[in-house]
Amino acid sequence: MNYRMILYVTGWVINFEAVFLLPSCLTGIIYREKAAVSLLLTALICLIVGFPMTRKRPKNTSIYAREGFVTVALSWIVLSALGALPFVFSGAIPSYIDALFETVSGFTTTGSSILAEVEPLPKCVLFWRSFTHWVGGMGVLVFVMAILPLAGGTNMYMMKAESPGPIVGKLVPKVKSTALLLYKMYLALTLLQLVFLLLGRMPLFDALTTTFGTAGTGGFGVKNDSIGGYSPYIQVVVTIFMILFGVNFNVYYLIIKKKAKLAAQSTEVRLYFLIIFVSIVLITANIAGMFGSLAEALRHAAFQVGSIITTTGFATTDFDVWPVFSKTILVILMFIGACAGSTGGGIKVSRILILLKAVRRELNLIAHPRRVRTLKVDGKMVETAVIRSVCVFLATYVLIFGVSLLLISVDNFDFTTNFTAVAATMNNIGPGLERVGPTCNFSGYSAFSTLVLTFDMLAGRLELFPLLILFSRNTWRK
Amino acid sequence: MNYRMILYVTGWVINFEAVFLLPSCLTGIIYREKAAVSLLLTALICLIVGFPMTRKRPKNTSIYAREGFVTVALSWIVLSALGALPFVFSGAIPSYIDALFETVSGFTTTGSSILAEVEPLPKCVLFWRSFTHWVGGMGVLVFVMAILPLAGGTNMYMMKAESPGPIVGKLVPKVKSTALLLYKMYLALTLLQLVFLLLGRMPLFDALTTTFGTAGTGGFGVKNDSIGGYSPYIQVVVTIFMILFGVNFNVYYLIIKKKAKLAAQSTEVRLYFLIIFVSIVLITANIAGMFGSLAEALRHAAFQVGSIITTTGFATTDFDVWPVFSKTILVILMFIGACAGSTGGGIKVSRILILLKAVRRELNLIAHPRRVRTLKVDGKMVETAVIRSVCVFLATYVLIFGVSLLLISVDNFDFTTNFTAVAATMNNIGPGLERVGPTCNFSGYSAFSTLVLTFDMLAGRLELFPLLILFSRNTWRK
Repeated sequence: MNYRMILYVTGWVINFEAVFLLPSCLTGIIYREKAAVSLLLTALICLIVGFPMTRKRPKNTSIYAREGFVTVALSWIVLSALGALPFVFSGAIPSYIDALFETVSGFTTTGSSILAEVEPLPKCVLFWRSFTHWVGGMGVLVFVMAILPLAGGTNMYMMKAESPGPIVGKLVPKVKSTALLLYKMYLALTLLQLVFLLLGRMPLFDALTTTFGTAGTGGFGVKNDSIGGYSPYIQVVVTIFMILFGVNFNVYYLIIKKKAKLAAQSTEVRLYFLIIFVSIVLITANIAGMFGSLAEALRHAAFQVGSIITTTGFATTDFDVWPVFSKTILVILMFIGACAGSTGGGIKVSRILILLKAVRRELNLIAHPRRVRTLKVDGKMVETAVIRSVCVFLATYVLIFGVSLLLISVDNFDFTTNFTAVAATMNNIGPGLERVGPTCNFSGYSAFSTLVLTFDMLAGRLELFPLLILFSRNTWRK
Repeated sequence: MNYRMILYVTGWVINFEAVFLLPSCLTGIIYREKAAVSLLLTALICLIVGFPMTRKRPKNTSIYAREGFVTVALSWIVLSALGALPFVFSGAIPSYIDALFETVSGFTTTGSSILAEVEPLPKCVLFWRSFTHWVGGMGVLVFVMAILPLAGGTNMYMMKAESPGPIVGKLVPKVKSTALLLYKMYLALTLLQLVFLLLGRMPLFDALTTTFGTAGTGGFGVKNDSIGGYSPYIQVVVTIFMILFGVNFNVYYLIIKKKAKLAAQSTEVRLYFLIIFVSIVLITANIAGMFGSLAEALRHAAFQVGSIITTTGFATTDFDVWPVFSKTILVILMFIGACAGSTGGGIKVSRILILLKAVRRELNLIAHPRRVRTLKVDGKMVETAVIRSVCVFLATYVLIFGVSLLLISVDNFDFTTNFTAVAATMNNIGPGLERVGPTCNFSGYSAFSTLVLTFDMLAGRLELFPLLILFSRNTWRK
């Protein structure tokens, strides 16, 4: 295990966190808020911790799968542990465990909150809270790799560990260039949404934070009623951009390269849009009677479907009062999640696709055992190792889900609350149903359950294995 | 596809159903009930349908995996379709869909009921209702194979399709002898329980029906309060026998062959008892305050744990009023289920074991990609095909679960009711929580949802693939 390199990269992540804190500091200075000091103080602490770790570049910079996964897991834990400090220092969230939950919820782009009201918070703290979504969305290690010349080709393992989806490919031969390209596209889409929101006369502060929440598919808002109080135009813009940020970024690269036809052939993206379309139609029909017009029902249905499948978690209405059929669709969308290679969470459409094909292949194998069958997606054969990994991912997912459900049930909340609390955190969505529904929050849970759900958010964002590998004895053996 | 052979075997299943109906007819004659006529009439119908199908033995008796799976699925459907008639004829359950639900619930050893009260039913109908558990527990095709000289070694495929568990092995070289041996052990354990219940001064009728419900891990009772009204002695006897019927029958064979040491080394059986032990301890501690003494809490905890993990579904108390922690343990046990090769349902402990090992192997593969790793259970390597099949089983399971949950949500019952209704039927348990809890029943669901849950019971009992294969186009192609 290359411990020096793990320390070195983690150090850089901490240094960058200091930089990430600066826009929030600036916000505090503009609004002349005292809380700006707590952000500045945290940035200083980051530098004090991070700087010594990065002073000397290790001679041996090679990183293999094991180191890659451990680095990513540790980086995210440290990032969150330090990122929670401004909430405590400013007094916005006095309990450190609650602050940690809120920060992990930010970086993992979950959007679950322990705050009953967000409007009384200082603007600079709200800015930091939303900005963590933007940083966590595309990935902080991906950011580090885009900026630093780290270790040649072996960075691929870190990218694999941090980027969502069963197959993480490079857009261009070099990992550094791929990372840079991803962030460029991410920034471009972010700016585009900001412009559209400003055109709708949204205040700059609201437009920035809402965009961060959308781009990272996070879901933290700056209003107590999330997006419900904004104009229908703004709600429609957010709906469209949520769905766009849930698309595999490879597709945007293909579009830039003028291969739009190839992009349109992606089975994953087609299935993603098909699921969205069908869900919107079914929910609109189901809730039509609850709203003044079909158009209004459609707008709310589309917003909530886009918000949940992309695992953003914004809300324009309290969907907990919807009929159970609509709520069940939303719960199922929670698990499906967005496309691989997007900023969204969940199991991912591509994994669902591979699982569906694996089921079909198994049935065919029973019917015709001697015929050789390959599993193809987009005309390409999927490697056995990938199929195995996807299946084991599902098993791991179910196991962690079950254990978490059991652990938080000691708080004696009802089954639906607990089930959707785990679903909402593990899939990085935000709100669940009942006592963690869109008008409620997670503050009712005990410190122990809060830590369990914090673990689930990290496990979900890093797609289980990087976090679990920390607890495996074999990882630390020579 | 050997259609003739499929017809021939299904015909024999129907003939045997006529025979299975006779003890119930006899019960009706003893109690001088009119309903005996409806049982006799059904037996006649079975013979009229089955006899022509079995008049001529096909020349080509070879059956491959495809035919085996299709035969098993069709046999179970026909068995249930005909077995539902006595309920309709006698007027006990006027709606055929409801009667079908009740019969499938019986044969699949689920024990979910649409009846609010069972005590007003004629004794002979109650006898038939409970006897279906006993027939379905060990398998009706296994029974046919034990009696008839069918088609040499190729019967193995039918055995594989009907017997629970990821790996179905033969106890002795011949399938026919294995089937006979299984039924002998089944009968011996059944008689043993009957004796113990009679020693507790349980009336013969109650003792017989309760034994059928326990042996098949079914759960239909003849009292409105299930086993709650019987003495603690009887409750303890039922607890012990439920747990015994959830053990892999291979273990009993080893014990008979005086290889008890080898039997005790079975990882699956050890894990099964470990899960039971831990669950009982946790629940007892959790519910201690609700009962007069610790002993009483322990008795109820042990009964409910034994009932749920073996997927029997008897109850001695309304566990729906227990704390959520205890209820969550029970819900998780619903999914784990009993051992492979037992009469119990659920995912099966051996599958959980293989999945856990697959997860650990995946983590080790990330840490040390170049080391070759085999997955061993009981010191023997598990074939790749088996691991794949177990993983795909989980995927199929989750998919069917999600679709069922969505379909029955149109009835607008609460999420917990729907979730546990699907869990209780797919895992062949019986009661769920809330509106399908132990003191409630399934009659509130619409005809459509009742059919969906009926499908789930069959899918669960036959372990998904045999039923799904009926709907695959490839099955019916040459």
